[in-house]
Amino acid sequence: MSLTVVGSIAFDAVKSPFGEREKMLGGAAVHFSLAASFFTDVRVVGPVGDDFGDAEYEVLRSRGVITDDIEHVEGGDTFFWKAHYEFDMNTAHTEDTQLGVFGEFEPKLSDESKSSDVLFLANIQPDVQRGVLEQSQARFSGLDSMNLWIETARDSLVKTIGGVDLLFLNDAELRMLTEEANLVKAARAVMDMGPSTVVAKQGEYGAALFTKEGFFALPAYPLETVVDPTGAGDSFAGGFLGYLGSRSDASDEELRRAMVYGSTLASFNVEEFGTERVSRLTREEIDERYSEFERMTALAGLPA
Amino acid sequence: MSLTVVGSIAFDAVKSPFGEREKMLGGAAVHFSLAASFFTDVRVVGPVGDDFGDAEYEVLRSRGVITDDIEHVEGGDTFFWKAHYEFDMNTAHTEDTQLGVFGEFEPKLSDESKSSDVLFLANIQPDVQRGVLEQSQARFSGLDSMNLWIETARDSLVKTIGGVDLLFLNDAELRMLTEEANLVKAARAVMDMGPSTVVAKQGEYGAALFTKEGFFALPAYPLETVVDPTGAGDSFAGGFLGYLGSRSDASDEELRRAMVYGSTLASFNVEEFGTERVSRLTREEIDERYSEFERMTALAGLPA
Repeated sequence: MSLTVVGSIAFDAVKSPFGEREKMLGGAAVHFSLAASFFTDVRVVGPVGDDFGDAEYEVLRSRGVITDDIEHVEGGDTFFWKAHYEFDMNTAHTEDTQLGVFGEFEPKLSDESKSSDVLFLANIQPDVQRGVLEQSQARFSGLDSMNLWIETARDSLVKTIGGVDLLFLNDAELRMLTEEANLVKAARAVMDMGPSTVVAKQGEYGAALFTKEGFFALPAYPLETVVDPTGAGDSFAGGFLGYLGSRSDASDEELRRAMVYGSTLASFNVEEFGTERVSRLTREEIDERYSEFERMTALAGLPA
Repeated sequence: MSLTVVGSIAFDAVKSPFGEREKMLGGAAVHFSLAASFFTDVRVVGPVGDDFGDAEYEVLRSRGVITDDIEHVEGGDTFFWKAHYEFDMNTAHTEDTQLGVFGEFEPKLSDESKSSDVLFLANIQPDVQRGVLEQSQARFSGLDSMNLWIETARDSLVKTIGGVDLLFLNDAELRMLTEEANLVKAARAVMDMGPSTVVAKQGEYGAALFTKEGFFALPAYPLETVVDPTGAGDSFAGGFLGYLGSRSDASDEELRRAMVYGSTLASFNVEEFGTERVSRLTREEIDERYSEFERMTALAGLPA
């Protein structure tokens, strides 16, 4: 089984109440790839500049991520993002964004990338996402987006959403996209656009899964300290689709398990800055936290 | 087994996007009593004025609630509250509050009220709550409060919290009370004040349970339409403590089940205005929704 992710590869400068990093590896495709790498073969597609070197490639390769489809743009600079978090940690306050080579990104999938079983379209302009989707032969595709595209490119986004199997969005974005205040109605409205599955990302409250068969919700792992929330959503998607990419179907049962793996990877991701925690994560730690999720939500199996 | 609740009995005027009521039965002790009445004998303690008549008593009595300890204050008016909700439904916009007889309420428990197994102190001035607590012989006590008392009577509130077994508060109030941005740390700080159990009410995201033994979280029931959120928190507490009052212990397993009954009663409460839905609720409907909660959170029992 294999999985292809298309999205940003970046350098991030992040300051939070627990410290700061001036320049560290980041970007949606990176966080996603590292999380997914625990479950299946991952190919990452995205552009980098001359400042992207062996140390950065090594973070990906040491987790087995296939970097053949990373596009090195001569003379360009890698996407750079600078932000800080206040104590509530729910909102990233962006201080600087330099798109660099990401601004001109026109992804062309290699034959290997096209033929992956699962495709993830990380947050990019929806026309670009649709261009990728049209090249792909994936049996299952997921998409992330953001408020910017809902506001500035809604028609294109709706068209792109119509072509994928699963949409990841946070609650506020789901409401904005569908103009439905009620989340259940909003999820149904998204399914009417095409996807069979909607995952509502709810930050510290976890995530909710809407399918034709029903509803499932999972709390976030209760962490006492969140050091850097950057990439939590992409780590969630990576754990989720990585697990799904390792399975033969996307049944309701498998989707529920994917929710747990997604939440597990997101919870590790935010424990340290950038990719630091997930880079040295082990499968044993993942399985232990999966079991903790089972214990902290156990209900049906309680002794009478 | 029996349960005593001390709190407000009120008339509410509520307008929401789904309609309005000019004067309907409400108040924390009323919502709590009706919810708890499905599980155990409930005695309600609170003051009413001359405007509180047979029709109001009948709503309580028809659910078996024992109204002997309702104090009728001659010449007084029952507490009146007027509010409206916007489309987001998360915030009640208060338009008018007339405390009436509730402003001079000095609860004195009857012998029967004192000897109840479980006591619930609905949201009142914390000195008044502590006065009740000192009269009670309950084996298990729960308390609700609000931002007003955290701001204006914090020392008294902390002292009162120190005497109860369980604190119900919403996330924002827990953070305000403990001055901890992180909810896990906030819950631990509350346990350091005395209670063995903390329930964080999270509105549309459900509720989280913190005990010495661990953490449990439950999503809210996914409703497409919330007509009137008034009393949801008290209905939750009523389902929770009513169930607990019917059991011989407050083990982690029982507390988890109490979370489901609390969430179930809260979900029915908000489906219609005021007490309308819960007044005609049946135990069969409760059990069916309990099962739905089991299905929508099932994880540990999934076939491999």
